[in-house]
Amino acid sequence: MSDQITIALDAMGGDDAPHIVVAGANIARRRHPNVRFVLFGDETELAARVAKQRGLREFVEIRDAPEGVAADAKPSQVVRSGQETSMWRAIDAVKAGDADGVVSAGNTGALLAMAMLVLKRLPGIDRPAIASFFPTQRGETVMLDLGANIRCNERNLVEFSIMGEVFARTILGIGNPTIGLLNVGEEETKGNDALKDAAQMLRELDLPGEFVGFVEGDDIPAGAVDVVVTDGFTGNVALKTAEGTAKLINAFVRETFRNSFWAKIGYIFAKRSFDKLRNRSDPRRYNGAMFLGLDGVCVKSHGGTDAVGFATAIGVAIDMVKYGGNASLKTTVERLDLESLRPQAVADS
Amino acid sequence: MSDQITIALDAMGGDDAPHIVVAGANIARRRHPNVRFVLFGDETELAARVAKQRGLREFVEIRDAPEGVAADAKPSQVVRSGQETSMWRAIDAVKAGDADGVVSAGNTGALLAMAMLVLKRLPGIDRPAIASFFPTQRGETVMLDLGANIRCNERNLVEFSIMGEVFARTILGIGNPTIGLLNVGEEETKGNDALKDAAQMLRELDLPGEFVGFVEGDDIPAGAVDVVVTDGFTGNVALKTAEGTAKLINAFVRETFRNSFWAKIGYIFAKRSFDKLRNRSDPRRYNGAMFLGLDGVCVKSHGGTDAVGFATAIGVAIDMVKYGGNASLKTTVERLDLESLRPQAVADS
Repeated sequence: MSDQITIALDAMGGDDAPHIVVAGANIARRRHPNVRFVLFGDETELAARVAKQRGLREFVEIRDAPEGVAADAKPSQVVRSGQETSMWRAIDAVKAGDADGVVSAGNTGALLAMAMLVLKRLPGIDRPAIASFFPTQRGETVMLDLGANIRCNERNLVEFSIMGEVFARTILGIGNPTIGLLNVGEEETKGNDALKDAAQMLRELDLPGEFVGFVEGDDIPAGAVDVVVTDGFTGNVALKTAEGTAKLINAFVRETFRNSFWAKIGYIFAKRSFDKLRNRSDPRRYNGAMFLGLDGVCVKSHGGTDAVGFATAIGVAIDMVKYGGNASLKTTVERLDLESLRPQAVADS
Repeated sequence: MSDQITIALDAMGGDDAPHIVVAGANIARRRHPNVRFVLFGDETELAARVAKQRGLREFVEIRDAPEGVAADAKPSQVVRSGQETSMWRAIDAVKAGDADGVVSAGNTGALLAMAMLVLKRLPGIDRPAIASFFPTQRGETVMLDLGANIRCNERNLVEFSIMGEVFARTILGIGNPTIGLLNVGEEETKGNDALKDAAQMLRELDLPGEFVGFVEGDDIPAGAVDVVVTDGFTGNVALKTAEGTAKLINAFVRETFRNSFWAKIGYIFAKRSFDKLRNRSDPRRYNGAMFLGLDGVCVKSHGGTDAVGFATAIGVAIDMVKYGGNASLKTTVERLDLESLRPQAVADS
């Protein structure tokens, strides 16, 4: 079938791999018709695990790649000597045209370094970025960069805005996404030069989506914009702070239900509604960070997720392929002629 | 009495000034014996408002300074022409020795600019910083800088660590505070050069408190350390993201209690416990950001707070004076000879 999608899976990456990968593939297969998988990992083990997943066998091909990438391996080392790892071979399957996208729950730095080396950047993109989405007061918001680039110049931030817009449109299905640059105030005079220059460029460019200017930290959970653009340092800190705060408040709420007899009774009545709330803000529903700006679809799953979460990450890769996210990004970048935007400062990573 | 403390109050700053200032002073006066206030604002109005607060009259002196600083005034402009404002005059009272500290709920940028100009920096301090504290899983944590310095070099971060330690000890009463540098990973190789160099210096210096290395965004709400040190850009974003996320989850919880008949019944039983939770995480209990590194005690209250919150900010100023926070900071800075730590890069603000 012409609309068949093939996803390469690194079956050796993640705290509970290969179980979550194989079981996750079986969940994803039911959710997404016309999807097949190429599994990279220990052939014998994978065959046994696939056999245990009802109905999965005919949707997967297994390729033997028993070598995994250690969770604490240095990216610089892995790119030199990791060609036989399951991670590298899964990425390589995309490059070779055997798969349309790749998903891994392994070492983030290694995955990014390998993906950049093997898949290369999309023409016109200077710096790929890590993007993800999470629940907010108004729905869902995309944020990038989440850690690929520690320091960014104005050109990088403009690229991230374009990439984030495509991601919001492709994965969240938002028609005309609003975009904000993360800053310490909304006034035009706030922030460093890269932010001010990026804002100026974004106002002048004929962007897809709608650039609304600067946003602040509390605008992220409020869902003030569909796409929050920032450097990888700030994005990483903001994302982890938000996750940690959500965990803190949830712990406070659990504790509150336990701290008196009457509160415990109250919980019995309210339990069903709180179960729904837990389901709505379940981190497994927001799993899957996309490496945007590469010439290929590469999605990073959280390492500690389970099969349900891994299936969500597979879904992100499938949607990027199905709705042509990268093709759309390429067209936009060509039209805007980003090469003409010369960065005034050299950014380091 | 020798241990009497006098606090200057900018009665014209804040969304609901002068009401919150006068009523806040009356709450603080009951909480802290031996405290007196000098109120700067419209004399007639203040006299009428003070008269309405039972028992406050004998604890306050009113000085006429009817001119306020606009919430959107530019700091650069205010420092040139704002000498007659209530904010300037309140700061000046500290400089003149008429007060031991000053509290304002007005324009943050203006307050910081004026305080730096009038009070000057403590000897040996290169960059003052804004510090505040908030609830975490393990108690309370101090974070700085929250926005005074957009970019920081290693010397600034070392200073912030020393200042944060003093603040945690003085205001939270923590014996030997642990200190962490905010980064995107805990490994020594993570982050930019300023962070790596600051970590190196902090390991080598004979600091008060205990430097534990790098911490990440989720360590802030987890309370992994007593003092989180970061540049003003990242600190501002992290604080606002945490506040916004707490608001989001609380909204989800409120909604959950409303979304079914049984949940509403549950709320009736659990209400008392949730009221206690609300009280525990009440932002008014954590109001009062200290400008550390100045030769004088200057506390910024949230502009939107009420009298109870303003009284908390007054309490921060009182504790800094009472427990000799600045004297302790001065001694530490002299002992460590920070001047010998030459910054390798020039930071801008």
